[in-house]
Amino acid sequence: MLNIPHIGALPAGPLNAISDVAGVTVGHATLAQGSIQTGVTVIRPHGGDPFRDKVPAAATVFNGFGKSIGLVQVQELGVLETPIALTNTLSVGSVATAQIVSAIGDNPEIGRSDPTVNPLVFECNDGYLNDIQALAITADHYRQALSAAAADFAQGAVGAGRGMSSFELKGGIGSASRLAQVGGKQYCVGALVLSNFGKLAALTLAGRRVGEELLRLRQPLEDVPEMGSIIMIIATDAPLDARQLGRLATRCGVGLGRTGSIYGHGSGDLALAFSTAQTLPYRPDQAMHQSASLHDSFSIPCSKQWLTAPSRQSSTPCLRPKP
Amino acid sequence: MLNIPHIGALPAGPLNAISDVAGVTVGHATLAQGSIQTGVTVIRPHGGDPFRDKVPAAATVFNGFGKSIGLVQVQELGVLETPIALTNTLSVGSVATAQIVSAIGDNPEIGRSDPTVNPLVFECNDGYLNDIQALAITADHYRQALSAAAADFAQGAVGAGRGMSSFELKGGIGSASRLAQVGGKQYCVGALVLSNFGKLAALTLAGRRVGEELLRLRQPLEDVPEMGSIIMIIATDAPLDARQLGRLATRCGVGLGRTGSIYGHGSGDLALAFSTAQTLPYRPDQAMHQSASLHDSFSIPCSKQWLTAPSRQSSTPCLRPKP
Amino acid sequence: MLNIPHIGALPAGPLNAISDVAGVTVGHATLAQGSIQTGVTVIRPHGGDPFRDKVPAAATVFNGFGKSIGLVQVQELGVLETPIALTNTLSVGSVATAQIVSAIGDNPEIGRSDPTVNPLVFECNDGYLNDIQALAITADHYRQALSAAAADFAQGAVGAGRGMSSFELKGGIGSASRLAQVGGKQYCVGALVLSNFGKLAALTLAGRRVGEELLRLRQPLEDVPEMGSIIMIIATDAPLDARQLGRLATRCGVGLGRTGSIYGHGSGDLALAFSTAQTLPYRPDQAMHQSASLHDSFSIPCSKQWLTAPSRQSSTPCLRPKP
Amino acid sequence: MLNIPHIGALPAGPLNAISDVAGVTVGHATLAQGSIQTGVTVIRPHGGDPFRDKVPAAATVFNGFGKSIGLVQVQELGVLETPIALTNTLSVGSVATAQIVSAIGDNPEIGRSDPTVNPLVFECNDGYLNDIQALAITADHYRQALSAAAADFAQGAVGAGRGMSSFELKGGIGSASRLAQVGGKQYCVGALVLSNFGKLAALTLAGRRVGEELLRLRQPLEDVPEMGSIIMIIATDAPLDARQLGRLATRCGVGLGRTGSIYGHGSGDLALAFSTAQTLPYRPDQAMHQSASLHDSFSIPCSKQWLTAPSRQSSTPCLRPKP
Repeated sequence: MLNIPHIGALPAGPLNAISDVAGVTVGHATLAQGSIQTGVTVIRPHGGDPFRDKVPAAATVFNGFGKSIGLVQVQELGVLETPIALTNTLSVGSVATAQIVSAIGDNPEIGRSDPTVNPLVFECNDGYLNDIQALAITADHYRQALSAAAADFAQGAVGAGRGMSSFELKGGIGSASRLAQVGGKQYCVGALVLSNFGKLAALTLAGRRVGEELLRLRQPLEDVPEMGSIIMIIATDAPLDARQLGRLATRCGVGLGRTGSIYGHGSGDLALAFSTAQTLPYRPDQAMHQSASLHDSFSIPCSKQWLTAPSRQSSTPCLRPKP
Repeated sequence: MLNIPHIGALPAGPLNAISDVAGVTVGHATLAQGSIQTGVTVIRPHGGDPFRDKVPAAATVFNGFGKSIGLVQVQELGVLETPIALTNTLSVGSVATAQIVSAIGDNPEIGRSDPTVNPLVFECNDGYLNDIQALAITADHYRQALSAAAADFAQGAVGAGRGMSSFELKGGIGSASRLAQVGGKQYCVGALVLSNFGKLAALTLAGRRVGEELLRLRQPLEDVPEMGSIIMIIATDAPLDARQLGRLATRCGVGLGRTGSIYGHGSGDLALAFSTAQTLPYRPDQAMHQSASLHDSFSIPCSKQWLTAPSRQSSTPCLRPKP
Repeated sequence: MLNIPHIGALPAGPLNAISDVAGVTVGHATLAQGSIQTGVTVIRPHGGDPFRDKVPAAATVFNGFGKSIGLVQVQELGVLETPIALTNTLSVGSVATAQIVSAIGDNPEIGRSDPTVNPLVFECNDGYLNDIQALAITADHYRQALSAAAADFAQGAVGAGRGMSSFELKGGIGSASRLAQVGGKQYCVGALVLSNFGKLAALTLAGRRVGEELLRLRQPLEDVPEMGSIIMIIATDAPLDARQLGRLATRCGVGLGRTGSIYGHGSGDLALAFSTAQTLPYRPDQAMHQSASLHDSFSIPCSKQWLTAPSRQSSTPCLRPKP
Repeated sequence: MLNIPHIGALPAGPLNAISDVAGVTVGHATLAQGSIQTGVTVIRPHGGDPFRDKVPAAATVFNGFGKSIGLVQVQELGVLETPIALTNTLSVGSVATAQIVSAIGDNPEIGRSDPTVNPLVFECNDGYLNDIQALAITADHYRQALSAAAADFAQGAVGAGRGMSSFELKGGIGSASRLAQVGGKQYCVGALVLSNFGKLAALTLAGRRVGEELLRLRQPLEDVPEMGSIIMIIATDAPLDARQLGRLATRCGVGLGRTGSIYGHGSGDLALAFSTAQTLPYRPDQAMHQSASLHDSFSIPCSKQWLTAPSRQSSTPCLRPKP
């Protein structure tokens, strides 16, 4: 077994998962019967109803060869208003409809005296393991994933990750978190990915060419191009607005590159970041609302433990405004 | 009855409809029973299968408070690969799934040895007349609209336009076309809109404040903000690539403004333009393909008949490269 | 003389100019000697130093055939940090350098312990009246315009507007303002344009085809395509963040279309909006800052006086959240 | 000395530089006297005049905290029309003016019967070594760099790279090239970077943590945040249109991430890609032009030599359309 060191200088949160951001929960519905190897994963930004209490969000498209739904409105209004759903490529329509039905259940005035709701569904193609043409995902699976959402959730070949493959190995759902001190307060950044890309030869972990090592043990699967697809979801309790969250989402591209991705032509590489620090009511009783924001210039300087640090040992990232 | 003059100096095509662009056809499925007043409209870019023979396309978002599906991939790859579907806001998921099923029917290797297919669904909210929560649109309605597609198609309160309202009047589907001579060849630009926006007081037709005139005859419906939503589809047989089609789509915003729109906060204003002049095969047998393009600088100079001209009378737009 | 009615239902501010937004001032340097007919116009967002107290801002590009400078950083950081400068197309470099020198004069640590400064220069091509190749604009002209900035400023063929033409008539600098009540408070939206586009036949003012009327009196200048270029600057004292200001800037396209523009191929149509309600310090002494924002859904409903209203007579726009 | 292996599986061209793309040349003007340590670097896309024979191009902004000039028009029209200039942050205006003067010299009708010219200047902040406030760059330096342009050019602390630092080491100009077989033809992709970012601890070369190794030998310079700035220019002789070149430019972000960048807040990370395969005349004598394009789906499959290969040894990348 490969002994992968803790990545980066910042310590992880208690779960080393996106749910270290307080209130964020994740649930899966997994279908695993014969040729049906697929599922739905749902990320809830908080314990309430995101249609009523919207959270700021923004997305970045690295490679738009994908079928994700809902980004037009996220970009315009800078908020989420449903839980985030992940599934297989051909099931985006079914899951979007399930999100709509679920939101109407909670908000009977949607499309009547309330505005309509914006479904938000991301996808990767699990056709390698799953009979994707079967369109096996139903509204029930979305509901099942939604009600299963918890801070303690499974990773790996579960939910939307069931049929995914990465670097010619099994892909799926992964998650991590990091803690940072900014201006005397501690914030958490959590990530969850649906990973479905990569060539084994390119696999790099914490700067180590793991793929090359593994290729001494086995042959590459086949000589096809990298067709990489990945969905990267970032949550944080730092008070960032939509513009700042867009900048945060864009930094996911750096991490993706470090694993060995080349943003291969054939699929979709997208990131979405949201903040739980403040919510925006959908029916404001006053025109004005107060909010707090971190200043863009507060960053975390690198220490010499930049890339590798003993796992989960707390370092003390210092902090000050960029001169 | 208002006598609306022909708009602009260029002559219309024979049908004064998007189907004057050779090969473009339009079909509707209309649901009109009691509280269900909705539908689907499908625009086929050519008589073949757009998954196999893709057409260049690009979209512009003027106001992204909308739930349209498929724009991420259109922007990345610059092509359509399904017919364009229009429907009500909450049915985008169902119609996307219907497009996927239809494409698989024609291309059994989708998601297997072929890539997946990108559904392309635009929407407006017909909740004013339709019980939008009923989610009455099914895959059958998409198929029905698809097989009904013809050059000679109905306009008005049909298909996706069934439940729409515009300028406090009945909205729905409208279409027009114009012919232009460029470099000694004649090209056609056709438009189809799904119109669901506007305040009566603002309605302006060919520079005439029709809304103000009508308000002398009746009261405004209610004193709510403009929540304008419109989908504008442009087809042309001029050889334009995706970048140029994006520029064409952006010009739709000018026309929208002239009718009295203010891009009201509450809904989605989008345009998509495609060209039928050339198709891109999905399984290229050679790496390279030849294409022809109009030079950006070829424009149509204005004559003094710029805005109004006798209906369908042929003018002779001259043409030359911008100095 | 044409009797142009007040445009729109909202009342103007006292000056009917962008400087009705408290603190905003405008200055010109005008060069008018023989073949040199050009200039610089400067818009100061407030009386202080925008490098130290930055204001939120965002821009929209309708037609990017233009050479404006500074938009990359405005889009990333969502703030202005210099006064806004307008000039002729070939002088953007000289004016950018003048802005840099001016900012260094006020902030000697720029590029040393402070970050560098982002010049922000917009342009139109005044080659019709000006010998643009003479590159007559110098840093002195920028300084002159900057120190001339006042709430009471000239409009017309002054500053950057000196050599511009619009609709085959004299173009140049124009300005206006409107007042709106939102949530019980009054806000001002001010506009300033550098106008250099349009065909006479297309000129439309408040819905009236003024161009057609004028063409009965004189011939069109020549039969060339519309090559329209316009810079539209919006100021407001409403508390809007960069995302919201981008939405505001986009609405400029509607107004532009109503005048008769077609976003002609040959030049640049851009809008930038900024808010004076709050400033962002460049050297934050704390990581977090509080801000207030209007809710997106607060809009101004149309009354039946939507488009025309007696000039400067106060209407009472009502206001409520969109349902 | 570190023995850095050849990066990637594809062989380099004869020079392993951007000038392996036939016709591309690079020239520097270097200022190195006392506190003035700066310069200009010019990349000519071909031996002719790019205003007359424009090349397709597109840019991607990874981090827009930068002052680069000319991107608005590149995005709209999809072409370059000047050589690409690189310099220090505060000299962008001077170099833009120098480009304008140079283009007028070659095309006396610019801004008269010809359209104006779009200067294209990228920058990084060399304030670490250079007295950037001195604004030492003049039009002469641009001309000097332009006339020095050659296929065989210096790399390192020359031209715009003179005052740059990277990874707490000396930064500057770097270049490389790779050859690929697509559809039976060989194409070249060349890169040139102006590098001015990075923390030593993060420096990674071909998957090796070189920075950590170096930190055993010396201390980090200071504990400041990564403020990374880099300009990445890609040239290719493959026939790609502007949309495809935008996709190519976006892939630069992957490579940047692999070196150890985090797209640090404080500066600009941008890429621009252009193709020399075809040019677009500025005064077309016919409306239509033919062009050839590579199909997007032709990619280069990975072999197990994906990341490391013996330097310059020719591998044989196979090729076929993505299924």
